[in-house]
Amino acid sequence: MALIRSVFQEELDGVSQSLVDLSNMASDSIHNATQALIEANLKIAEEVISYDEKIDLYQHDLDTRIIDIIARQQPVASDLRALVTALRMSADLERMGDLAHHVAKVARLRHPANVLPAELKDLVNHIGSVAENISRKIPTVIETRDIEMALQLEKDDDEMDKLHRQLIGTMTSSSWTHGIESAVDITLLGRYYERFADHAVSVSRRVYFLVTGTFANPTR
Amino acid sequence: MALIRSVFQEELDGVSQSLVDLSNMASDSIHNATQALIEANLKIAEEVISYDEKIDLYQHDLDTRIIDIIARQQPVASDLRALVTALRMSADLERMGDLAHHVAKVARLRHPANVLPAELKDLVNHIGSVAENISRKIPTVIETRDIEMALQLEKDDDEMDKLHRQLIGTMTSSSWTHGIESAVDITLLGRYYERFADHAVSVSRRVYFLVTGTFANPTR
Repeated sequence: MALIRSVFQEELDGVSQSLVDLSNMASDSIHNATQALIEANLKIAEEVISYDEKIDLYQHDLDTRIIDIIARQQPVASDLRALVTALRMSADLERMGDLAHHVAKVARLRHPANVLPAELKDLVNHIGSVAENISRKIPTVIETRDIEMALQLEKDDDEMDKLHRQLIGTMTSSSWTHGIESAVDITLLGRYYERFADHAVSVSRRVYFLVTGTFANPTR
Repeated sequence: MALIRSVFQEELDGVSQSLVDLSNMASDSIHNATQALIEANLKIAEEVISYDEKIDLYQHDLDTRIIDIIARQQPVASDLRALVTALRMSADLERMGDLAHHVAKVARLRHPANVLPAELKDLVNHIGSVAENISRKIPTVIETRDIEMALQLEKDDDEMDKLHRQLIGTMTSSSWTHGIESAVDITLLGRYYERFADHAVSVSRRVYFLVTGTFANPTR
């Protein structure tokens, strides 16, 4: 029984920890982007925008490290698959940072005006919370490889889709009085949140696949 | 002088060829999706939607092959980087197929109505052509590793951004009479074409990076 873990195992654990760190960065970003949007807060919007560079750098360093591990350790097939999957997860998480950054940019573009009509603030706040909650579950999925929780993210994403349809429905109802520019902004915002959640679910599916060898919900 | 190329070199060439095939599939898809949209042609829309499954399968097989090559050949650092880059390129190309599929789904959703008001058909057709043209350059970039052509894709993408702004501008001008639902559809379509072109540029940048070791246009 090996009491001292191998260097390789420590490197793999380090990769998992970095993916957790990236998840937390993406979660913080979407939290703050939603706040910037709801409050039309330019300072927070600017912070989210500049924070995205940190996420990009963090991901770039992580990817370099993963490729270096593959080159040095020449891992067996299952470890290699895990490392390639880690590269894909880091790409998803980096993209989530981009999407939070896009939300913040819409808030900045319209400042000092508020992008959101008063009647949509609660709904968009709710969409932002669901996106953040999905993302906040990723660290546990990565750390525990909990398959039940991985599947829970799919359900949360159904909730996101429902809210997204509600958002579009509000705009296309005959009572919309806020004009086309506002509808264009909100359509894009809805798309950014939806894609943020999609990428979070994708991370969780990759963990599911690593653990079970099968795809969760292949028909989606 | 080795007249017989190594098995490994043949495998690398095979990966390049598959990336070229995937590029052609994505190009065909966006071409047909644009036609489905412009003509409100349900049959073509359905074909693009079902063709996306073929692209997904092709990409899945390619990725499996690339990981198998890494596992068996244990390539040196530069070859390993090329293979990891191939994985990223295949992800970009698969996503381009998704985006063409999204365009086709909008055409199908509104059929038999035409999603596009008559005055936007030429502009959207132009946007579709630019997206396709960018994508059609990828095979040459991959096969010749031509750095000048890789940079040309960046310029084409600037044209895409200009047309995309024009599209949004047409909708938000005071003369827009086609309502909110149409504006939501067209905003999403514009986003799909823009992202299609972004991913095509991303493929070309990855080739640029492999050849030069530096990033093209890092400030973008």
